[in-house]
Amino acid sequence: MRVAILMGSDSDLPMIKPAIEILREFNVSCEVRVISAHRTPEIAAKFSKEAKSKGFGVIIAAAGKAAHLAGGIAANTTLPVIGIPVKSSTLDGLDALLSTVQMPGGFPVATVAIDGAVNAALLAIEILAVSDNTLTQKLMDYRNATVEKYLEKDKEINESLSF
Amino acid sequence: MRVAILMGSDSDLPMIKPAIEILREFNVSCEVRVISAHRTPEIAAKFSKEAKSKGFGVIIAAAGKAAHLAGGIAANTTLPVIGIPVKSSTLDGLDALLSTVQMPGGFPVATVAIDGAVNAALLAIEILAVSDNTLTQKLMDYRNATVEKYLEKDKEINESLSF
Amino acid sequence: MRVAILMGSDSDLPMIKPAIEILREFNVSCEVRVISAHRTPEIAAKFSKEAKSKGFGVIIAAAGKAAHLAGGIAANTTLPVIGIPVKSSTLDGLDALLSTVQMPGGFPVATVAIDGAVNAALLAIEILAVSDNTLTQKLMDYRNATVEKYLEKDKEINESLSF
Amino acid sequence: MRVAILMGSDSDLPMIKPAIEILREFNVSCEVRVISAHRTPEIAAKFSKEAKSKGFGVIIAAAGKAAHLAGGIAANTTLPVIGIPVKSSTLDGLDALLSTVQMPGGFPVATVAIDGAVNAALLAIEILAVSDNTLTQKLMDYRNATVEKYLEKDKEINESLSF
Amino acid sequence: MRVAILMGSDSDLPMIKPAIEILREFNVSCEVRVISAHRTPEIAAKFSKEAKSKGFGVIIAAAGKAAHLAGGIAANTTLPVIGIPVKSSTLDGLDALLSTVQMPGGFPVATVAIDGAVNAALLAIEILAVSDNTLTQKLMDYRNATVEKYLEKDKEINESLSF
Amino acid sequence: MRVAILMGSDSDLPMIKPAIEILREFNVSCEVRVISAHRTPEIAAKFSKEAKSKGFGVIIAAAGKAAHLAGGIAANTTLPVIGIPVKSSTLDGLDALLSTVQMPGGFPVATVAIDGAVNAALLAIEILAVSDNTLTQKLMDYRNATVEKYLEKDKEINESLSF
Amino acid sequence: MRVAILMGSDSDLPMIKPAIEILREFNVSCEVRVISAHRTPEIAAKFSKEAKSKGFGVIIAAAGKAAHLAGGIAANTTLPVIGIPVKSSTLDGLDALLSTVQMPGGFPVATVAIDGAVNAALLAIEILAVSDNTLTQKLMDYRNATVEKYLEKDKEINESLSF
Amino acid sequence: MRVAILMGSDSDLPMIKPAIEILREFNVSCEVRVISAHRTPEIAAKFSKEAKSKGFGVIIAAAGKAAHLAGGIAANTTLPVIGIPVKSSTLDGLDALLSTVQMPGGFPVATVAIDGAVNAALLAIEILAVSDNTLTQKLMDYRNATVEKYLEKDKEINESLSF
Repeated sequence: MRVAILMGSDSDLPMIKPAIEILREFNVSCEVRVISAHRTPEIAAKFSKEAKSKGFGVIIAAAGKAAHLAGGIAANTTLPVIGIPVKSSTLDGLDALLSTVQMPGGFPVATVAIDGAVNAALLAIEILAVSDNTLTQKLMDYRNATVEKYLEKDKEINESLSF
Repeated sequence: MRVAILMGSDSDLPMIKPAIEILREFNVSCEVRVISAHRTPEIAAKFSKEAKSKGFGVIIAAAGKAAHLAGGIAANTTLPVIGIPVKSSTLDGLDALLSTVQMPGGFPVATVAIDGAVNAALLAIEILAVSDNTLTQKLMDYRNATVEKYLEKDKEINESLSF
Repeated sequence: MRVAILMGSDSDLPMIKPAIEILREFNVSCEVRVISAHRTPEIAAKFSKEAKSKGFGVIIAAAGKAAHLAGGIAANTTLPVIGIPVKSSTLDGLDALLSTVQMPGGFPVATVAIDGAVNAALLAIEILAVSDNTLTQKLMDYRNATVEKYLEKDKEINESLSF
Repeated sequence: MRVAILMGSDSDLPMIKPAIEILREFNVSCEVRVISAHRTPEIAAKFSKEAKSKGFGVIIAAAGKAAHLAGGIAANTTLPVIGIPVKSSTLDGLDALLSTVQMPGGFPVATVAIDGAVNAALLAIEILAVSDNTLTQKLMDYRNATVEKYLEKDKEINESLSF
Repeated sequence: MRVAILMGSDSDLPMIKPAIEILREFNVSCEVRVISAHRTPEIAAKFSKEAKSKGFGVIIAAAGKAAHLAGGIAANTTLPVIGIPVKSSTLDGLDALLSTVQMPGGFPVATVAIDGAVNAALLAIEILAVSDNTLTQKLMDYRNATVEKYLEKDKEINESLSF
Repeated sequence: MRVAILMGSDSDLPMIKPAIEILREFNVSCEVRVISAHRTPEIAAKFSKEAKSKGFGVIIAAAGKAAHLAGGIAANTTLPVIGIPVKSSTLDGLDALLSTVQMPGGFPVATVAIDGAVNAALLAIEILAVSDNTLTQKLMDYRNATVEKYLEKDKEINESLSF
Repeated sequence: MRVAILMGSDSDLPMIKPAIEILREFNVSCEVRVISAHRTPEIAAKFSKEAKSKGFGVIIAAAGKAAHLAGGIAANTTLPVIGIPVKSSTLDGLDALLSTVQMPGGFPVATVAIDGAVNAALLAIEILAVSDNTLTQKLMDYRNATVEKYLEKDKEINESLSF
Repeated sequence: MRVAILMGSDSDLPMIKPAIEILREFNVSCEVRVISAHRTPEIAAKFSKEAKSKGFGVIIAAAGKAAHLAGGIAANTTLPVIGIPVKSSTLDGLDALLSTVQMPGGFPVATVAIDGAVNAALLAIEILAVSDNTLTQKLMDYRNATVEKYLEKDKEINESLSF
């Protein structure tokens, strides 16, 4: 199954790129779109209604300020929708976080951290992995590799700075 | 011209009632609806697209939490949209305020105070009054009447408490 | 596949109950546990490590204040973990929201609204439904039923209050 | 009808300029003033009292910190007043947002996003367009043009980044 | 010299009463008024312009939400203006605090705690006491009396609870 | 060694009582005082300067609003000072939390959660236990007993609610 | 009478300088000190106890983070104490604002805006001016001069940007 | 006894370094580790369980965002655990502060200021000094030396800027 990555503005692209790279690394194909709950609401509605039948398993939606994109997508699909609140020029992303996570009953948005593109991609893969053991294995390999590098840093800092 | 009052949940009705009463007092006819950006997105879109041709001059939209209603309406009309952030069980309405007011460029929502139904109605009337001198006169009468009562309180408190 | 619902304290139970009822309504079996990242860290670790092999597909974790439970579970499994920030006696749940959602890269927690038990259950079902069309159909039926009731309220309020 | 743009400090000018440009683009004449609720309260009062008779239809007021300008204008006119909260050196504009939007009953300020000059101008035009179909048409053209550019970005990013 | 106590709404009276009582206790005469920056801006302006010549030495102004009263008074007098932010139905007084304290350069408002009527009165007396040694002595007596009662509580609690 | 529990106001006593009970349960003697950084600054200074020589090992200080007590104590002793931010009538304890925890370099205050009396007492005991193995053992017994009760709740909820 | 300006850290000096300049401009002599509620509590106590007898009329105290300085001074004098919350490396000065303004009953601190040195100096002069008509006249001249410059900016911007 | 300094990420090292330097200055040996509640939970658990028997007296844990490290350590030891909330790219450290300080009853974390490495080290030494008079003496010498430098700055600024 594929993953869709929607961003509310093309200015979100640098923040989003790590998510695209992780999906590529896991060999999960993804469609990247610039779609807006306000500028192109009909495209947003059409995309989300057709998403399941087009083979998408999860939709990631990133937006800043009054971030309505993820919620707008969730209104039109029963696929899991992951929301990334984007930090913009004021309020440090708190506005986008609350606009994304505080959804009313009936329409969940699986919200990750402000600017949390990496975790959005990993969460999408975890969701696909629920019924795909190959992906589960890759997730464990990815995590082990991360831990490996992390342990090296621990060793280096421990040896150079303890006394 | 008529005013539409949309609320995201029927539980918002007690907060909204003063707005309905003010419109009635000003003899501005209004349509009251329970419409949701998430539960009934197509009705929301249809309503806002047709609003101008159906004789509406302003749309008031009240919603709490991740309050997407006003923004969702604004996406589909060029009528002025007034947003009322509604206080819910957590965060004292701050989530709804930020979700309503922090709209991206291109889609303004004229936001009033948290639970600010009275001001939403008055703002709607002010907007209609731009091209309607009778309404302007009524607004001035309303304001004068308010001030009159206020001056009485000032007099009473001043006389009883100064020393 | 089953869903696990973990709560950090048995005082969270009244808030959690709607999640249990929804899972029952969808005929998704669930295991309800009181597990704490601090009081019983080993049980938490053991539970999350074994969760996949024991047939769980998703884990829901609810906690308040410095809410570490969801993150602690996510550290030990690659299953999707859904976090419910719980409102407690101070700060209106903002502490739990930030402690749950602001996870570091590598360990996503799919965070829902403060006290958002209903959405946590629906998100869990959406995740299981990615590979289960019966569940997808039930989700659509559930949503349609919700909308149906909602439309009645719209009709009632529109008819009684518009003028 | 004309639009007035008032700013509390000439340092707000760079933020305000896009609003002036949009009004020019829509051929709505505007008067730009530096007026302060504190430094020149009598000018502020006189301006707002005479605004309607001088042909203004809407007043935009931008101010930072304890932003009293929009409210002070609203106290002396029944014209719609649009408030732009301005971000200053501390608190990221939250102080100006709350000072602008949390108006007491009787004196609405149509508040837009922090530093939201573009939306303030568009909202002003929407208000004038309520009784001016030419402006409505221009608003729709403007929106369509925006969407057009936006769709190109979507196409470009979709083609270059999906896989 | 007299002290003026202005409140934006007569609903602020219960919170304000302790300030009136303290002024009475110190034998400082005071005028209590309900005056609003928005409802009665001309009365507010007139009052503040004439305050010094009418024998006032300090002005206390209490207001909630977008609390513009203290700032509006400060714009029209060089007397010290003390602002009391009033807690209202949402945001716990944070809106009033920021609207009162974040004044632009040139127009200070001496802000006390949210609902801090007692301290507003004491600050007013401290200001009058700068050139009035009798008041200084009374302030010291008041403080000593407060401390006396406080020491008794310390004694009682220490004796009953230490072990 | 003894523990001192200082509270800024006798109204903090109900919140503080669980701390006293825990110290009694651990057989750590404690002195309970009502001392204020503002009302009785000299007593506060004298107490903290003499605390070590009088046999105190740790000082707990609880205060609300602009909570200066813990910091004021820390200024006059090198004993560890534990600060409890107290929730008062506005701002939910956030003011006290920031006033307690954001100490400048040189004068640490070991801050616990808002109204966190239980943890303040346990932290005091942990500090004394660094050089007292009997206390360490009691802490472990206390923790085990807590976990025991907790496991029973887990069992009960798991059995009655899982399906 | 003289004014004292106390800062908690010499790093506050650049922010404080405009206050010193204003006092010089008004010919009000001032003593500038680096005094800390934590590093030099005895000097702080001694200074504030003796301040009145040494000819000070007002004390300005600037501090950041857990800003206890102004409150600590207020505990030991009945002179008016003006607090300037200083923005530091985190939280944008909100911590210092709450630590300064939320004083308990009995010990007012006249708080100005975050980093509000100019207003602190003007407020100090306003307080001295209560019994000094020369200072009152200077304050009015200062304000008029400010307004003069301001009106020029208004004229310039109005002429160049209106259309 | 030794002190352990754990950081959640090696990117925290520059902030942590002053803590290491202070411990070195006080001749308290320390072990510096990169340990994560999420990446290496078993190492974190093992480290904290064995810490006491390995001769550690205090554990310092620094982490940002959803900062679970200090709490995770506290779950597995009865040694005092000091938490340093780390400021990261959004929310100015408020997320880490709340995630660290708002611990549930039973598991205290002695929290210091955001990025408060210096105070974390001093607090650790204060805790060890409870049973070590040599350390107490060093703490007093350190404090005296700090005050000495501070008094020089006071003198210099007082002489150059007072008038």
